[in-house]
Amino acid sequence: MKLAVIGVGLIGGSFALALKKAKAVSHVVGVGRGEQNLKLALERGIVDSIARDAAVAAKDADLVLVATPLAQFASIFSALKDSRALITDGGSTKRDVIAAARKALGSGIARFVPAHPIAGAEKSGVAAASADLFEDRRVVLTPLKENSPAAIAKVTSAWQACGARVSEMPADEHDAVLAAVSHLPHLLAFALVHEVAGRKNAEQLFSFAAGGFRDFTRIASSHPEMWRDICLANKDQLRKEIDRFLGKLGQVKALLDDPAGLERLFAEAREARDRWMRSS
Amino acid sequence: MKLAVIGVGLIGGSFALALKKAKAVSHVVGVGRGEQNLKLALERGIVDSIARDAAVAAKDADLVLVATPLAQFASIFSALKDSRALITDGGSTKRDVIAAARKALGSGIARFVPAHPIAGAEKSGVAAASADLFEDRRVVLTPLKENSPAAIAKVTSAWQACGARVSEMPADEHDAVLAAVSHLPHLLAFALVHEVAGRKNAEQLFSFAAGGFRDFTRIASSHPEMWRDICLANKDQLRKEIDRFLGKLGQVKALLDDPAGLERLFAEAREARDRWMRSS
Repeated sequence: MKLAVIGVGLIGGSFALALKKAKAVSHVVGVGRGEQNLKLALERGIVDSIARDAAVAAKDADLVLVATPLAQFASIFSALKDSRALITDGGSTKRDVIAAARKALGSGIARFVPAHPIAGAEKSGVAAASADLFEDRRVVLTPLKENSPAAIAKVTSAWQACGARVSEMPADEHDAVLAAVSHLPHLLAFALVHEVAGRKNAEQLFSFAAGGFRDFTRIASSHPEMWRDICLANKDQLRKEIDRFLGKLGQVKALLDDPAGLERLFAEAREARDRWMRSS
Repeated sequence: MKLAVIGVGLIGGSFALALKKAKAVSHVVGVGRGEQNLKLALERGIVDSIARDAAVAAKDADLVLVATPLAQFASIFSALKDSRALITDGGSTKRDVIAAARKALGSGIARFVPAHPIAGAEKSGVAAASADLFEDRRVVLTPLKENSPAAIAKVTSAWQACGARVSEMPADEHDAVLAAVSHLPHLLAFALVHEVAGRKNAEQLFSFAAGGFRDFTRIASSHPEMWRDICLANKDQLRKEIDRFLGKLGQVKALLDDPAGLERLFAEAREARDRWMRSS
């Protein structure tokens, strides 16, 4: 099987490495914007060859993974219009990706089985890629009514070969769920760091920040362009989440005058989190 | 030197262990609310004896550490009124602790050198105590005008013997700094988990939460009573921080219509965080 990876970064590089490790692919061709990054991917044996663009890479590929920042998906799908390869992706949002694919692929849309590997990291680029990034991680497929059972099965197998736990969900539901548990927390972390960094005494503030702050803000070291695209692609859901959180924060602020209520909220949150940690 | 630890939890237990390891104390007497916890402290050799209350424990102690949740400080200081021991504390806020100490100790206030070891964890209780909890961590002293240089020096030495980097700061400034980099993040983490946990599809949401969510919310597994007390003790500073953050979040929400502005904010936050990580 020949795999084309469009966007050889953390996700694309790890997908290639994992499928090579599983002996599920015989050749990987890579496409990317960064020359240095592609060179490194070749050196590390993550890709076997480099193609000029997505159209060339997909020409005799069996499977194409699109794993660039979301804003590039539309033009990549256009380049894939005439290929016959099965296509999946690593986009963190799904409605916008599907809309872009429909527009570009037209009647070829059946070849595209949308996927979201929930396995990011604040690191990016092929240097951070690893064969076990998806090991025991969730991958959500949001299949289209045009997808054949065979196409869905093939894409499912590929992600499973990476060690992932694959499940399916409608794209709307996916985007709502991820807005709550991923996109909003990223936004809050970026916002907090930006707020602190913008103050006159920022240096002092950072110097007294400890482990709690470090972990809380880890995701604020994520890739700005990638997260810009995710937030914009899912902005209607994200606005709803921001509004809900603003409401909750107002509620917590009011509880500063209600010691018992504040402790109850903290205790309920801790219990919910500890239950989640035990079950995950 | 005889040490009395009032509140043998993570902080109190670690202080005792660290000073024993440094051979800076010969006997540690512990006081606490939880019988099981105190028994464990005896078994682990963290304390050598147990006293009924703070007054008894402090009787022939050279140094007393007060390390209970903040709401208990007032009655503990009252119990320490007639002791001659030097007193320090592990409270996460300082203005309220100092006010309580002044009220209870009266002219004995010179014996109290307020301290805040910035070395929490979401774990609590003596079971989590360790001799190196304070190793290379910051401890902020907020000395009082009544403290003699000798008293400040002794308390400084004790914390340094635990491996900590000790610095001094006015209590007001301490509380403002910690509100921004510790108390607000805790509140945000508790709020987010509570928001998610309260929804009909909470189980689904948690099941798709990944490493970013886990780290972002780690501090929401912190001790509810302890954090209730901290938030209440510092509520005027915390309200200011909540309002600033609400403003920042409104700004970020508006940037969902300004791709370049949003990316710039993300990039600035990442750069600030990465700079901090490199320097810390």
